[in-house]
Amino acid sequence: MNRFGNIFTLTTFGESHGRAIGGVIDGVPSGFHIRTEAIQSELDRRRPGSTPLGTARRENDQIEILSGIYRDITLGSPIGFIIPNTNAHTADYAEMEHIYRPSHADYTYDAKYGLRDWRGGGRASARETACRVAAGAVARQILAQATQIKVAAYTSRIGSVAVSDGLKDTEHVYKSPVRCPEPGETEAAMINEVERARTAGNTVGGMVTCIISGMPAGLGEPLADKLQAMLGAAILGIPAVKGWEYGSGMQSASAYGSETADIFTSDNGRIRILSNHSGGIQGGISNGEDIYFNVAFKPAPTMMRDIRTVDDQGHTAILHAQGRHDPCVVPRAVPVVEAMTCITLLDALLMHRAGGLRTSL
Amino acid sequence: MNRFGNIFTLTTFGESHGRAIGGVIDGVPSGFHIRTEAIQSELDRRRPGSTPLGTARRENDQIEILSGIYRDITLGSPIGFIIPNTNAHTADYAEMEHIYRPSHADYTYDAKYGLRDWRGGGRASARETACRVAAGAVARQILAQATQIKVAAYTSRIGSVAVSDGLKDTEHVYKSPVRCPEPGETEAAMINEVERARTAGNTVGGMVTCIISGMPAGLGEPLADKLQAMLGAAILGIPAVKGWEYGSGMQSASAYGSETADIFTSDNGRIRILSNHSGGIQGGISNGEDIYFNVAFKPAPTMMRDIRTVDDQGHTAILHAQGRHDPCVVPRAVPVVEAMTCITLLDALLMHRAGGLRTSL
Amino acid sequence: MNRFGNIFTLTTFGESHGRAIGGVIDGVPSGFHIRTEAIQSELDRRRPGSTPLGTARRENDQIEILSGIYRDITLGSPIGFIIPNTNAHTADYAEMEHIYRPSHADYTYDAKYGLRDWRGGGRASARETACRVAAGAVARQILAQATQIKVAAYTSRIGSVAVSDGLKDTEHVYKSPVRCPEPGETEAAMINEVERARTAGNTVGGMVTCIISGMPAGLGEPLADKLQAMLGAAILGIPAVKGWEYGSGMQSASAYGSETADIFTSDNGRIRILSNHSGGIQGGISNGEDIYFNVAFKPAPTMMRDIRTVDDQGHTAILHAQGRHDPCVVPRAVPVVEAMTCITLLDALLMHRAGGLRTSL
Amino acid sequence: MNRFGNIFTLTTFGESHGRAIGGVIDGVPSGFHIRTEAIQSELDRRRPGSTPLGTARRENDQIEILSGIYRDITLGSPIGFIIPNTNAHTADYAEMEHIYRPSHADYTYDAKYGLRDWRGGGRASARETACRVAAGAVARQILAQATQIKVAAYTSRIGSVAVSDGLKDTEHVYKSPVRCPEPGETEAAMINEVERARTAGNTVGGMVTCIISGMPAGLGEPLADKLQAMLGAAILGIPAVKGWEYGSGMQSASAYGSETADIFTSDNGRIRILSNHSGGIQGGISNGEDIYFNVAFKPAPTMMRDIRTVDDQGHTAILHAQGRHDPCVVPRAVPVVEAMTCITLLDALLMHRAGGLRTSL
Repeated sequence: MNRFGNIFTLTTFGESHGRAIGGVIDGVPSGFHIRTEAIQSELDRRRPGSTPLGTARRENDQIEILSGIYRDITLGSPIGFIIPNTNAHTADYAEMEHIYRPSHADYTYDAKYGLRDWRGGGRASARETACRVAAGAVARQILAQATQIKVAAYTSRIGSVAVSDGLKDTEHVYKSPVRCPEPGETEAAMINEVERARTAGNTVGGMVTCIISGMPAGLGEPLADKLQAMLGAAILGIPAVKGWEYGSGMQSASAYGSETADIFTSDNGRIRILSNHSGGIQGGISNGEDIYFNVAFKPAPTMMRDIRTVDDQGHTAILHAQGRHDPCVVPRAVPVVEAMTCITLLDALLMHRAGGLRTSL
Repeated sequence: MNRFGNIFTLTTFGESHGRAIGGVIDGVPSGFHIRTEAIQSELDRRRPGSTPLGTARRENDQIEILSGIYRDITLGSPIGFIIPNTNAHTADYAEMEHIYRPSHADYTYDAKYGLRDWRGGGRASARETACRVAAGAVARQILAQATQIKVAAYTSRIGSVAVSDGLKDTEHVYKSPVRCPEPGETEAAMINEVERARTAGNTVGGMVTCIISGMPAGLGEPLADKLQAMLGAAILGIPAVKGWEYGSGMQSASAYGSETADIFTSDNGRIRILSNHSGGIQGGISNGEDIYFNVAFKPAPTMMRDIRTVDDQGHTAILHAQGRHDPCVVPRAVPVVEAMTCITLLDALLMHRAGGLRTSL
Repeated sequence: MNRFGNIFTLTTFGESHGRAIGGVIDGVPSGFHIRTEAIQSELDRRRPGSTPLGTARRENDQIEILSGIYRDITLGSPIGFIIPNTNAHTADYAEMEHIYRPSHADYTYDAKYGLRDWRGGGRASARETACRVAAGAVARQILAQATQIKVAAYTSRIGSVAVSDGLKDTEHVYKSPVRCPEPGETEAAMINEVERARTAGNTVGGMVTCIISGMPAGLGEPLADKLQAMLGAAILGIPAVKGWEYGSGMQSASAYGSETADIFTSDNGRIRILSNHSGGIQGGISNGEDIYFNVAFKPAPTMMRDIRTVDDQGHTAILHAQGRHDPCVVPRAVPVVEAMTCITLLDALLMHRAGGLRTSL
Repeated sequence: MNRFGNIFTLTTFGESHGRAIGGVIDGVPSGFHIRTEAIQSELDRRRPGSTPLGTARRENDQIEILSGIYRDITLGSPIGFIIPNTNAHTADYAEMEHIYRPSHADYTYDAKYGLRDWRGGGRASARETACRVAAGAVARQILAQATQIKVAAYTSRIGSVAVSDGLKDTEHVYKSPVRCPEPGETEAAMINEVERARTAGNTVGGMVTCIISGMPAGLGEPLADKLQAMLGAAILGIPAVKGWEYGSGMQSASAYGSETADIFTSDNGRIRILSNHSGGIQGGISNGEDIYFNVAFKPAPTMMRDIRTVDDQGHTAILHAQGRHDPCVVPRAVPVVEAMTCITLLDALLMHRAGGLRTSL
């Protein structure tokens, strides 16, 4: 229920205003170097305050690794970790104890569980994604040591502003406050879009694009755990995501086969696929070409406006929003997309190994 | 690996030209009436020959239920079933033993497993989806007896032709050879789009839309098994799917919060959500409103043309396609989308029951 | 619920008097030779009629492999199979529709499911174990090609007669009608014990011992899936098993550390463990020495006697047993113990591979 | 790998001399009262120092609950917790960095993972069982609110001393330093057995018996998750356990059907089972009678003696044991047996609910 993955798994816990959030990473293969600073540095890309455009909440998001690593090497035992909550302003949420915020999980949690921790969104807070970033940073380090796989995501759209050239400058992404890969006009326009939303007490949606390079052929299970189904589920589990597409994507619906079939060719004996409308996956299994996908994020529903809603007795109520929120969640979502992708790829790699026995132990 | 679901599960087996395909449905709650004819009737909607626009392959797709039902009532034990393969033309595929078809799974299966059953696509054939339709028909009957849930899908686009009014006429969908819910011009244009593609030896993509009504609030797990992640993964596991979106979908990326936040209101004490940009799910949990989603299908890559490709030694080869294929897979995909949706919803319902213990046994 | 294993899995279906029993073996690694005759030959060791001492029911237990193997090689896709029921005498069971047989599952199935298939024990019939023998035969062939592992079980006790020397003559086990490894006096006494029970309309219990040799060190997960917990659960899931012990076993409770601690020694640089009270497993992980365990089977509760019991309305009833039953289930249980052991070991091997990634793909 | 259970699950982490051990309890149903003191009080029964007969290591085993409970009520979200390690004497273990202790997990961890945390036994330390006791205490409180189920374990044998009358005095168990249910002679003899072993630098084994009363009929899945297989696996996963039996147990192997078949009778319309050789489970499903089982614990292999062994290079070495150990692990194992039993029963209860849907949501 709170566990991601099949073999390399992450189980998380924690409410937004509780003592800590945290998790257990299980199925960690032994013998890999893990640098805690590399984990912390990925957390810093997501934490409140990581971009000047985000929420005013400030959290250090300081991770404490409690187990599973000895002398910087993975033991093969689970990595337990916690991230204390230090900057919770519960008072900001007091009126939400009985009032349902529009398009949030307040009502559905009550419907499902009969009660909820209303402080700061409780379990439904996007704060939980910090745990995924931590696990993603572990996965990324193992992938780097075991394979050529690289995962890079970026903001490809904010509201009406879209990038034109794709991942032009990988280095620039995390320097950009909006995680835009194109320094210059596009980036400025994206920043402007966010600032306009903030000024208007509004929020704005956006798109994240992710590119996986250095893929070996053969990852993904052909039926129920097709690689696209694993990736799609991992990404659709991120708060605020409303759609996911890969390769030729949603526009495939308007296309003809003569336009989208990929071409096999032989590159000095190594089989390559031209055009890559397939998006690096065929029949649920990676073909060795780059995998790329798009993720649509809705504008956050919490706005700096008075909103008419209902309370938990079904009576009309007015919500005077006062929490600290992001006018655009997309920049802080970029490292979360990367993290879920790394987690999923390492899981797929280990699943492939489990099934790939062909000769001897 | 070949299993869908968590509690209500389907494990399938079978290659396209083997003796039979089939599966085991496990986690079936006891005491429900199951009519075999209702299963067969759903299979008939998907089978080759179900629409005059489809492949020339004719399969009866006659299901044999082997266990789990006694005097038309589910026993609580697993339902084993087989669907014999009766109309396999293996000779049509002879040249594919060593040649890789573009955008198919031929190459990736070889890369993953070191060998493959090349006859009729082997395990990667869409024929496997018949098993899902069978399990979906079981799930649908149980949902109908235990809940108000109804699942209805339809073709919302084929190539350049899209429906304008949504699910106008539920009854018409399966009367239409293209599964179009709008009799008249739109349907005629869709049929024309398919026929044009066939005549040109080409194929065409399309979109399926699915609407779930009668949902109770509370289904879906809030973290890793968010209802949208479960649905998305189930649908992304259908062959040829390239994208999935729900509620405000991909266009959320261009939207502002003031446009997409839903409004809570009270309808005689019952809490309702107006506008439903959320698509019936908030925080991963159903809110009681209709769930709706879109699925993009790529045009099938197998065309009636000579195609230059490579063989399994990496040499250039010419593929003289001769199999029997669909110019558009969308009409036959509609019942598959419904089936995966029914399977997922029943699974979510049972997961909710498992976690929902509140008072006494 | 009806699935054994984690990665190499078996899902079975089927009621005793339904059309067929069968299953799906998933997680089968690709590229292994599987001989169907070797599967059939293991089934023949378990089937009714396999020993002159068993039930009068005669079943061919003829397996039909439907998928997953092509040209005698595993494809990596699931192996679906069925074993038709051909010799069901449902009339023998007519009175059991409403009467509960002592120490059987009749009452508990009704309590759990609200109904049951009473014909021949329905789903609770030991006939289901034929499916496990089939999967075990697949696992054994893969283990033989990938490792040095050998699994051999035998009857070590029937009622008051126990073997004295352990597995003296592996070859003799399946020649013996009681699966006794010691030709001569012990075997004769065991046969006599069974015949006496049959003549008296009684039944008798027994013990099966299993020895796993050629084990590599390192199999088993150290916490929840300790190798002994995996083996124990697999064996405790066989009908009629009442206890399981390994290594120094139940008598450890009366022992002192000075008696049972094993000694490490070095055999030309290879680490060996003397005495092997550990039974080949330390900390949940195989240490490379032989694993051995004992399984206690209760005497079957169905006797050729009139028995006073109750019906499903709670009224007193007399059961006139007329089915065809074994006076001692132990001889036919020996191949089932071997099968569950092979399934578990291959699963542990694949789990180990999944977690054992250390360097590169 | 480090996860117990199917729906109500416990994932643990932590090495003996790391910063903390801990875990995540997932699948916790919402709306139940949980008293932290009740958890702490069960931990106090297991912690080092809980009995004057045990190890000299003193740990407070103070639990910190980090999530999942709000105002003393379960939220339905996971309960994360940690238990800091405060009294680790790593220096005591210095020589074990390269030397393998007999019958411990040192060698097998190295064989499996290529490295290990040797300090205090690392992950293989029985200290990890504190996490299970914490989760068991949560399960027990939920069982008490949702059912009539009660779980009580006690020491039934230490070395040569066995109890004669079973669970004579439930109240006395945790007052007794050896967890003996019979005050007086038996208890004194057990204490004497432990003291004699300690004085001799030896250790002694023992037996724990567990009784589950107040069971509803219907728990347990009939095939792969038979209730006895679930219980057996849970108990066999406790360090030092060498055997598990229930109902008529290992001695069934010497019994006749006429001796062990249970008798159904009607007690004012309620069906009861006399004699209970079945041990409360028939066909894998609880029948409503008491479940009882025995667990054999081996004597701990760490003795206060110099022992000849090998190092990780395969050279002969002498181990000068200096750690703080229990002469008999059985008294401290009693709460662990109870905990694993409570965890398993709640899991079985929730699995039953998941599968038991019969009428409406």
